[in-house]
Amino acid sequence: MPLDTGTMTDPGEPTGTNATLQSPISQDGRPIIGQRYEVAARQGRAVRVNAGQTIRVINTHGTQVCDFWAFAENDLHEFLSMEHLHSQLETVMPRVGQSLCTNRRRPILHFTTDTSPGVHDTVIAACDIHRYHSLGVKDYHDNCTDNLRMALIAIGLRALEIPAPLNLWMNIPINAEGGIDWCPTVSKPGDYVDMTAEMDCIAVMSACPQDIVPINGPDSTPVELHFEIH
Amino acid sequence: MPLDTGTMTDPGEPTGTNATLQSPISQDGRPIIGQRYEVAARQGRAVRVNAGQTIRVINTHGTQVCDFWAFAENDLHEFLSMEHLHSQLETVMPRVGQSLCTNRRRPILHFTTDTSPGVHDTVIAACDIHRYHSLGVKDYHDNCTDNLRMALIAIGLRALEIPAPLNLWMNIPINAEGGIDWCPTVSKPGDYVDMTAEMDCIAVMSACPQDIVPINGPDSTPVELHFEIH
Repeated sequence: MPLDTGTMTDPGEPTGTNATLQSPISQDGRPIIGQRYEVAARQGRAVRVNAGQTIRVINTHGTQVCDFWAFAENDLHEFLSMEHLHSQLETVMPRVGQSLCTNRRRPILHFTTDTSPGVHDTVIAACDIHRYHSLGVKDYHDNCTDNLRMALIAIGLRALEIPAPLNLWMNIPINAEGGIDWCPTVSKPGDYVDMTAEMDCIAVMSACPQDIVPINGPDSTPVELHFEIH
Repeated sequence: MPLDTGTMTDPGEPTGTNATLQSPISQDGRPIIGQRYEVAARQGRAVRVNAGQTIRVINTHGTQVCDFWAFAENDLHEFLSMEHLHSQLETVMPRVGQSLCTNRRRPILHFTTDTSPGVHDTVIAACDIHRYHSLGVKDYHDNCTDNLRMALIAIGLRALEIPAPLNLWMNIPINAEGGIDWCPTVSKPGDYVDMTAEMDCIAVMSACPQDIVPINGPDSTPVELHFEIH
């Protein structure tokens, strides 16, 4: 009996567009080592990181959330996975010194440095067009899920799945009853995290365009981030 | 430029096998209304649930964790999503009266009844062969991820992605620092949850075969579960 996979949508197809699509750091996402790249406000960027190289993600203004993903370079079905990380590290709050694992429980990034207070989120989905529609937006709104899709397309790839992101600097306290809150970042301008690749991978960052729920600083103004590969 | 999707593995391919593959409730997963079906210990079962029908999942012995998934019947890329549920419900602990949403933020199941104390997990990945290997198992070990894959194959479908599960009765407290613990269930024999489908969907249950980490009661003995469609 042939196996039915249903009437499929394409997880890699953006629901709208922004300048992410025309703004890769290079045609194939290979970086110049040591160069500082911008993730423009409300946009996404993808970069190839070889095993042993370190990606530094910089919260230039201190107030910006960075939705972050990492995919195995040779198989986009393997990726940094929050639910597997929770199990492997026995925490929802990864710390410097820990290895972050994929959905096959292989280490993909070693979390080596964090100059911020270490508040990052691992339980909340990337924003998407459906999120903004539920918040009352009528038309297209930039969103991290489309930024991921477009950042990959911009370097000639296509998302096969949309993993839960590592939300750098996103401040989502979980209370004793399991309730969560949406709070501004507690990082300062120039704070950065360093993560060293444990396999060849593709990192994707989105400067979260959330301007309704106050996660991006008290003013809810999305701004740019930067990153470097060392 | 053609878009590269990498050297793909198949997320729907089991890494081993058990009787799940030969034990569907019916050839296409359609249930007999009101009939009580077994999810055998260490195995998985899939069932089609039409919009308006209610699935009752029964913790027959009280000590068993049930990894639970729901997929939109017409598109297996849309599914009950823990990270989207966290965002929409602003909690990691869903409660009776709430609608559980998909990765497109559409309601898929309304959580209508829970006779247990309401302790369920939404942050931990389904166990998989890699998990058991990391726990020291050398050979194949039944696991919830393969049970999901096989339960779908048994009714003629194939998983396109492996979503994070709703782990019914799994007791994973999260402390103030974000640390998690692995604890036995707090449910009693015969406890059940009812969820009413808000779209035509395919529910999959796995009677978690975890027998090393003590989540399945103090004896860590995996046992059977039951379910009914009303």
